[in-house]
Amino acid sequence: MDLFNIKDPSFLKGMTIRELEKLSEEIRDFLIHQLSKTGGHIGPNLGVVELTIALHRSFDSPNDKIIWDVGHQSYVHKILTGRASEFDSLRQYKGLSGFPKMMESEHDVWETGHSSTSLSAAMGMAIARDLRKEQSYVVPVIGDGALTGGMALEALNHIGHERKNMIVILNDNEMSIAPNVGALHNVLGRLRTAGKYQWAKDELEALMKRIPAVGGKIAATAEKIKDSLKYLLVSGVFFEELGFTYLGPVDGHNYEALFENIAYAKKMEGPILLHVITKKGKGYQPAENDRTGNWHGTGPYKIETGDFLKPVNSPPAWSKLVSETVRRMAREDERIVAITPAMPVGSKLEGFASEFPDRMFDVGIAEQHAATVAAGLATQKMKPFLAIYSTFLQRAYDQVVHDICRQNLNVFIGIDRAGLVGADGETHQGVFDIAFLRNLPNMVIMMPKDENEGQHMVYTGLTYDDGPIALRFPRGNGLGVPLDETLHAIPIGSWEVLKEGKDAAILTFGTTIPMAIKAAAILEKQGCSVKVVNARFIKPLDEKLLTSLLQLNIPLVTIEEAVLQGGFGSAVLEFSHDHGFHHSEIHRMGIPDRFIEHGGVKELLEEIGLTVEEIVKKINSIARKKQKRA
Amino acid sequence: MDLFNIKDPSFLKGMTIRELEKLSEEIRDFLIHQLSKTGGHIGPNLGVVELTIALHRSFDSPNDKIIWDVGHQSYVHKILTGRASEFDSLRQYKGLSGFPKMMESEHDVWETGHSSTSLSAAMGMAIARDLRKEQSYVVPVIGDGALTGGMALEALNHIGHERKNMIVILNDNEMSIAPNVGALHNVLGRLRTAGKYQWAKDELEALMKRIPAVGGKIAATAEKIKDSLKYLLVSGVFFEELGFTYLGPVDGHNYEALFENIAYAKKMEGPILLHVITKKGKGYQPAENDRTGNWHGTGPYKIETGDFLKPVNSPPAWSKLVSETVRRMAREDERIVAITPAMPVGSKLEGFASEFPDRMFDVGIAEQHAATVAAGLATQKMKPFLAIYSTFLQRAYDQVVHDICRQNLNVFIGIDRAGLVGADGETHQGVFDIAFLRNLPNMVIMMPKDENEGQHMVYTGLTYDDGPIALRFPRGNGLGVPLDETLHAIPIGSWEVLKEGKDAAILTFGTTIPMAIKAAAILEKQGCSVKVVNARFIKPLDEKLLTSLLQLNIPLVTIEEAVLQGGFGSAVLEFSHDHGFHHSEIHRMGIPDRFIEHGGVKELLEEIGLTVEEIVKKINSIARKKQKRA
Repeated sequence: MDLFNIKDPSFLKGMTIRELEKLSEEIRDFLIHQLSKTGGHIGPNLGVVELTIALHRSFDSPNDKIIWDVGHQSYVHKILTGRASEFDSLRQYKGLSGFPKMMESEHDVWETGHSSTSLSAAMGMAIARDLRKEQSYVVPVIGDGALTGGMALEALNHIGHERKNMIVILNDNEMSIAPNVGALHNVLGRLRTAGKYQWAKDELEALMKRIPAVGGKIAATAEKIKDSLKYLLVSGVFFEELGFTYLGPVDGHNYEALFENIAYAKKMEGPILLHVITKKGKGYQPAENDRTGNWHGTGPYKIETGDFLKPVNSPPAWSKLVSETVRRMAREDERIVAITPAMPVGSKLEGFASEFPDRMFDVGIAEQHAATVAAGLATQKMKPFLAIYSTFLQRAYDQVVHDICRQNLNVFIGIDRAGLVGADGETHQGVFDIAFLRNLPNMVIMMPKDENEGQHMVYTGLTYDDGPIALRFPRGNGLGVPLDETLHAIPIGSWEVLKEGKDAAILTFGTTIPMAIKAAAILEKQGCSVKVVNARFIKPLDEKLLTSLLQLNIPLVTIEEAVLQGGFGSAVLEFSHDHGFHHSEIHRMGIPDRFIEHGGVKELLEEIGLTVEEIVKKINSIARKKQKRA
Repeated sequence: MDLFNIKDPSFLKGMTIRELEKLSEEIRDFLIHQLSKTGGHIGPNLGVVELTIALHRSFDSPNDKIIWDVGHQSYVHKILTGRASEFDSLRQYKGLSGFPKMMESEHDVWETGHSSTSLSAAMGMAIARDLRKEQSYVVPVIGDGALTGGMALEALNHIGHERKNMIVILNDNEMSIAPNVGALHNVLGRLRTAGKYQWAKDELEALMKRIPAVGGKIAATAEKIKDSLKYLLVSGVFFEELGFTYLGPVDGHNYEALFENIAYAKKMEGPILLHVITKKGKGYQPAENDRTGNWHGTGPYKIETGDFLKPVNSPPAWSKLVSETVRRMAREDERIVAITPAMPVGSKLEGFASEFPDRMFDVGIAEQHAATVAAGLATQKMKPFLAIYSTFLQRAYDQVVHDICRQNLNVFIGIDRAGLVGADGETHQGVFDIAFLRNLPNMVIMMPKDENEGQHMVYTGLTYDDGPIALRFPRGNGLGVPLDETLHAIPIGSWEVLKEGKDAAILTFGTTIPMAIKAAAILEKQGCSVKVVNARFIKPLDEKLLTSLLQLNIPLVTIEEAVLQGGFGSAVLEFSHDHGFHHSEIHRMGIPDRFIEHGGVKELLEEIGLTVEEIVKKINSIARKKQKRA
């Protein structure tokens, strides 16, 4: 059938299993073809083709609420809800989002991006339904990886207690982004390998009948055993213990099994956990064979060979530079330990892990635990490197406040993907961290102008012994500058004048430094002499240098690829007023007070006015006003 | 013995059980007597007298690491580590902290205050120990309530997977702060009521021998049954499933049982969970009989009667005002639902709960889940009231960013205990929320000047339908102003001039308004006329009023009981510079860039210079400087 003609999923109701299988093939072909051009989360989506179709055939969306945890596996759902024609613009500026978006469709009842939120959201929806005495199914679809996130476990605990009607689909592909870790994963593994559960149940009952009937204590125990065994063997005892009815495991690529189990689940009361086994990348050999997570999300690729055209998942130079410098230092310093919450690939820690397997801990999707493990290590005078994306650091905020900063522990936080991240969009932009970290006592925050400064900052972070220190670095590749052979520490709170000037000064750091330098060169030609300062420490500020700038009484322009509210520019404002420079003229450029959607970073920067042209324009207008006043 | 003579816990090694029992009595008497004068966490500490003594006798602190989750149950530990003589100053300014503090003792190896951090910290310490090939026991002591916190569950999953040597003491008193909720609680309940486990194990093995030996499938199943049964009946299967060896349950007030089990645990490899049953308030009848949580933490009380002298846990008027206004509105608006993470008593939601039992959800210590349940409710056009303390909102930060603000959902957040909280100290001060919320798009933040404005703000929050809105309110009692009968909405972003003046203007909100008014009155007499503005909306600002103030070109002084970095004062600076008022003279008063310890709020405010006198001094000095320049 023509996928472009799909308006909503109602057409599925009348289809035979054979027709559905044909549709699955068509959708797979479509995805493989489309994503070879645009890139995207190919592996997760190929894995849920049958599951998504089965859900949309079995339930009535949007009255029934299908909630996609994490959301990067919602492409099939998007096709079935009338969005196939938009896939050319997937994850592009003003194009189709790679995640569920309420604005796109009434079938997107909950927006995701970060993992492990679906169960709590489902609980909210189930409560609302029951209070209004409405009829509908609430169906969160959560991966085995996302289940290790603390909030998912909090939710299981609460849902099991309240016993609300809800059908949780556990989409178990034995791999979240990287291969899974954690004891829960082993629980699932045992369930998977236990084979035919119905068979076990029959065997068990036969066996029970053979247990000799005896009086007294033994009889009571036998009864207990009978109950307990059913419990343990036939059902997923772990989930049953938490109050769920466990169904499965079901082959997630077999329509008959899926329909049968979903139909069964629909008839039951209370919370159900339907355990579905799927294969990531199903139907496309290169993705299906992936064992490292390279086919989780990709850039464009050649269909025939599975070669990445412009490998998005190839070493993002910044992550690699940082983790390899940590690795280099770990050779000299046995105290260095690396911790990642499920991002060994994204954070490019494979090298570190292979060289120091005992000193590398992937704790699963568990940012809170990751941060406090780092704190615990630091109390023992170890040197933990906590590798975490800016956007996911939000998950560990209290641990950073209460455990790391308050105890003033020497934790080195590598904040990856700081700033705009592009295609992943508003759920993933790393733009809040300066504002939410800068207010914390004891915290040092730095960001390098290039890879060479970056490696020295890694050294700075791992040799600093007066509390927590964070190194922000952007997504993607560095500038290609040569690297010094010997590492050294950069004095805490020291800025650097990159270009002299007398009419105005730009204070900026990280990704916006090249822009500032270009803008200053253009302005120079126009007769306006602009100083450019690498404000590489966002906290503490270089108070001496800043004071000298304020004394010059020239306009200062702060530029940051981060939210303006409470950001670096505000720190400059605070300092100037606290130190009596009330007459200083300070202008701030940065990210305005709204969420920034997906698109190319360049396009996004243009949209918000963080470009060379806008800097030139801004400073020209400042200069003109100044002349007018003069 | 004289508790004041204790230097460290080594004296315990030589004591007989009878002597230990006598010591327990002495410690209980001491605690009951001392806390009747100072107040403190009496219930939790009376519950762990034997457990703490048993741990310090069985382990060698500080080489062995005893880690107190939450930490308010560390009083006995403080006595045993030489701090009995300091109990007169408990929780007072410059006195003994109510929580573990590294500065106080080398036996305090980890600082707590927020719950559920101990397992992650223990994991960090265990990793450090093993990497250094050192010998020591790591012994986190965690309550059954704290176990529902997501990060504790993340930690269980990781510890079970890594199988590090660690002895987790589950201190199960069937009640955290309020009676426990959640499915995990039921798991524990089943373990408790299952009776003698050793007996069950013996029975089981006898029974197993009777199962007829048969070939083929049945035999294999029988083996499986045998394993499974041991698993389920003899051990706490829930914890075993996660990779722990489960021991217990043990009577936490019986030394022999405690010693036997701890000794057994010390000999075993891998992570152990020792389930200890204790009774909160043990040995003091009023506390022992408590079923509501009133004896969790108290002010001074009369020992003989158990009457509270100055009831700290009696209605903190602010919490009550807010929750009762929500309750009043809930009578008219069926969409209103209240959610609390384990704080129904603290947030004074008992009235709401009894009137609307179906619309009140205590989700346990699970702030992340609480926030996203609220978001899920809001997607269904319900009106969730999320009651949460400022300091605990840090735990739900990502959920506020990613689920609530990003989806722009109508969640009304009641931020209780905003500002300095006093005796609980630096782990509990609610001083960061403005800085970490103000940078989030769509967020509205307000704080009332008195209870009457407070009730109108509840109305404002529950009728606002353009996104998330937060109402901050302080710990403790209101001002005692009369309450309007009819509620109305306060226009979003509107400030209020409380007093006119022409020489300077104070912009402030909440608790610092009475100070500002007093200061202005004093200054008036001294010939300095100061305008006082109730800046009740911290976001958005009243741009019109602020612009008019900036146009007056008089000094502005912002005052806030919150951190200065990125706070309200910074918002005023940002606005003024963004709108071309570069020559405005703006001064900020607030909490400096360090953690504020425990003590009376008044003393703490004096320490940081947030007093009437300091405001007068500040404005006088500004005025003098201005005259000099003029």
